[in-house]
Amino acid sequence: MTQIDLNSDLGESYGAYTIGNDSEVLRYVSSANIACGMHAGDPFVMHRTVRLALERGVAPGAHPGLMDLPGFGRRAIPTKPEEAYDLTVYQVGALAAFVRAEGGRLQHVKPHGALYNMAAKDMALAKAIAAAVRDVDPGLVLYGLAGSCLVRAAEAAGLTAASEVFADRTYQDDGSLTPRSQPGAVLTDDEAAIRQVLRMVEHGTVVSVTGKEIPVRADTVCIHGDSPKALEFARRIRERLLAEGVRIVSFAGR
Amino acid sequence: MTQIDLNSDLGESYGAYTIGNDSEVLRYVSSANIACGMHAGDPFVMHRTVRLALERGVAPGAHPGLMDLPGFGRRAIPTKPEEAYDLTVYQVGALAAFVRAEGGRLQHVKPHGALYNMAAKDMALAKAIAAAVRDVDPGLVLYGLAGSCLVRAAEAAGLTAASEVFADRTYQDDGSLTPRSQPGAVLTDDEAAIRQVLRMVEHGTVVSVTGKEIPVRADTVCIHGDSPKALEFARRIRERLLAEGVRIVSFAGR
Amino acid sequence: MTQIDLNSDLGESYGAYTIGNDSEVLRYVSSANIACGMHAGDPFVMHRTVRLALERGVAPGAHPGLMDLPGFGRRAIPTKPEEAYDLTVYQVGALAAFVRAEGGRLQHVKPHGALYNMAAKDMALAKAIAAAVRDVDPGLVLYGLAGSCLVRAAEAAGLTAASEVFADRTYQDDGSLTPRSQPGAVLTDDEAAIRQVLRMVEHGTVVSVTGKEIPVRADTVCIHGDSPKALEFARRIRERLLAEGVRIVSFAGR
Amino acid sequence: MTQIDLNSDLGESYGAYTIGNDSEVLRYVSSANIACGMHAGDPFVMHRTVRLALERGVAPGAHPGLMDLPGFGRRAIPTKPEEAYDLTVYQVGALAAFVRAEGGRLQHVKPHGALYNMAAKDMALAKAIAAAVRDVDPGLVLYGLAGSCLVRAAEAAGLTAASEVFADRTYQDDGSLTPRSQPGAVLTDDEAAIRQVLRMVEHGTVVSVTGKEIPVRADTVCIHGDSPKALEFARRIRERLLAEGVRIVSFAGR
Repeated sequence: MTQIDLNSDLGESYGAYTIGNDSEVLRYVSSANIACGMHAGDPFVMHRTVRLALERGVAPGAHPGLMDLPGFGRRAIPTKPEEAYDLTVYQVGALAAFVRAEGGRLQHVKPHGALYNMAAKDMALAKAIAAAVRDVDPGLVLYGLAGSCLVRAAEAAGLTAASEVFADRTYQDDGSLTPRSQPGAVLTDDEAAIRQVLRMVEHGTVVSVTGKEIPVRADTVCIHGDSPKALEFARRIRERLLAEGVRIVSFAGR
Repeated sequence: MTQIDLNSDLGESYGAYTIGNDSEVLRYVSSANIACGMHAGDPFVMHRTVRLALERGVAPGAHPGLMDLPGFGRRAIPTKPEEAYDLTVYQVGALAAFVRAEGGRLQHVKPHGALYNMAAKDMALAKAIAAAVRDVDPGLVLYGLAGSCLVRAAEAAGLTAASEVFADRTYQDDGSLTPRSQPGAVLTDDEAAIRQVLRMVEHGTVVSVTGKEIPVRADTVCIHGDSPKALEFARRIRERLLAEGVRIVSFAGR
Repeated sequence: MTQIDLNSDLGESYGAYTIGNDSEVLRYVSSANIACGMHAGDPFVMHRTVRLALERGVAPGAHPGLMDLPGFGRRAIPTKPEEAYDLTVYQVGALAAFVRAEGGRLQHVKPHGALYNMAAKDMALAKAIAAAVRDVDPGLVLYGLAGSCLVRAAEAAGLTAASEVFADRTYQDDGSLTPRSQPGAVLTDDEAAIRQVLRMVEHGTVVSVTGKEIPVRADTVCIHGDSPKALEFARRIRERLLAEGVRIVSFAGR
Repeated sequence: MTQIDLNSDLGESYGAYTIGNDSEVLRYVSSANIACGMHAGDPFVMHRTVRLALERGVAPGAHPGLMDLPGFGRRAIPTKPEEAYDLTVYQVGALAAFVRAEGGRLQHVKPHGALYNMAAKDMALAKAIAAAVRDVDPGLVLYGLAGSCLVRAAEAAGLTAASEVFADRTYQDDGSLTPRSQPGAVLTDDEAAIRQVLRMVEHGTVVSVTGKEIPVRADTVCIHGDSPKALEFARRIRERLLAEGVRIVSFAGR
């Protein structure tokens, strides 16, 4: 039976600041990437989010980012591999402790924002992150962009790698995402996005911007929950996948 | 054979800022309280300090503090028990991950600064910290001021508690420290401080400011390394303890 | 003609985090207290908020708080008078520079949260804040709780003081606010809150919780905009004041 | 009579962390670049440093940096021109307020670290910084690397620009600094460094790494004080300049 993991970024609130609709989006996903206090989140938000995910049967994961609260971890701050290693160990350890304290088990790690994007293209950075994850817990799944350095580094480190695909982004002939700076980078038609995901999940292919059908590995799909429109899309894609007989399940649930 | 643990606060540097003489003070202590990135320390400093402690055979511990880099964790920021719980889980988890990544085992937790002082007198705060430590790892030793709420809360939580004494502070008749705001709070004579420690370790008593000999439990002595004078005192007290036949050993080493 | 200033806390967003409905609440107030990057706000938010206030003809003020983003400046962090002085100079200077760059003139300073509350009762702290405001610009108006130390300190420093009253808080016989920890601290009936404001503005009195009519000075009323209900109340109180013939005007506009 | 300004970065301590030898280096310089709380410094350090500079007759300047305490402002965080504008307005305003409160007058602005380096090569960033300085106070002097975008942008904005040269760095044929990544980037021989400065000050030229004598404008020389060796060099270069009849004087002192 075909199966897929749906993941979303959660726990990004901070102190008096609230962001996202965590309680809502948890209805639709199987795995939660929880911010770890560097680019977003704080210890109180982390605890609350871990507890909520576990209560809903959603597998908790760490979502480590750059030490960049002002920039929400989205700025490409020059980062050495050994710094990426330390940032990852720190944040994964902190999040894992909340999961343990709540009687759960940490499932995965997905780097956030600029760290995710840099690790997709920079093998030294990718290797450092994979080594950090392995050194903290070799049973963790490491999420990375399908076809990226991070997925290869995870496999080379002996970790289970999860290839992530995007519903609303278009792909180049070489399997890479069309950069956001280019026209046509984003699929604005929800139905087209849903069809793209179904094709990825069921056939392992995607139609590139030039019309070629190219292979893409889809272990997990990234879902957003930061707007009513995003939540509505999350609900629809979940329903369509289920209607097509696809099982939505985390890696821990397999 | 009489034995005692000597501990010191380490890893308090941050980014471009250096504080303390970690490499020197590690010669004299058996346990290291390593800052965890909230009041001091950062992921890079934490990793370096954990590695250094393990190389020197010094047992690593987490030194969680308030989220207060501007105040170095010394300001009594109003903190609810559930906040203290979350701050402790977060920081212990982060430090433990570095210890694990380096192939070691976290020995203990000692709250820092204002968190330590507040937990000495506030049982609800003490219980929250003890619960956090137990929920992350029930095998951890929790350090607290001898006779304080934190020691009692640790024991009630089923943890091994370590009663901490101070070489250079004077004691009241009820076993509490003379507040720093009062005259005579600090022993400025090194020889008197050394005699006080020897009496605590060998006889389990201390002479209070009024001249009474009162009981005090001494499992571990706090040593400072932030000045040449402090380092010289650390060297002297270590030599005197060894000369008296006292074994200096961490809890992990017993 | 009776006149009153209506003020609100604005510019409290930070990086990717949005809080409040600044654009809406600016319709109803005459003065804006703009966060200065310590407890909330960042340089980009400050610039945007200053520009928006000036465009709408609302007088800009600095809203300095404690260096406490995690606690949104609401925690009573122990603060020495000289620290309060420096925190105030820093934040007033930074906000004033944006106002100057936009061709405007800074009207006032209102301390935020815990700093406001501590300065209401602690004369040393109040004097330090007043001295800071005077040393940066003696033409600034200093807002403080009516009847508080801060108002007295402002006057003693030769500044124009603005006595602030609250629409939705009840008052004790001595003119102080009923602490939020006590029942009946908050007026939940909007109509009662509006009548309280009208009485304060027109007669200079308030009916205390024991039913006594006591004097209170009302130069400015604090308005909230952080919820649809708060905005609706802001709209209603503005309309009622205007209907009663009260002129709503900032100090700069007199 | 030939004259030159000597400047140094000061006020870089933070909370419990001390960096540099501010009191010592103030003996040798005519202008102080004071950190403004973003990459280093805090309001208490700023106040203390401003007071000390004014007491010693050294002209105070703002030293704005990126919002990057963990990286000490040395990391090239991607920064848009409008962000650079806001960062500059904020920090210059804050520092200027301390100078005003102490009865002095802010002389100049020198961007710090990565902001300085990025503004040297990126004209859009340089223009934004120059506009910010002009909008806060058109009487301020803006320091930039000799021959850089920042100097040109300062002049275009109608500001007085100060061309900065380095004693211990070598120059390329085009007048740019040899990148630190290349061999021979740093002059390690103090006597050679002193001769380089004298030639720059007296003749307006420097001998490039290929041996060519090329023109360079030297209005101010950057002096370091963060080590005993650096302080000794500062003392020597000051003495040599005075011995050669060069007047060491700030722009405010002319």
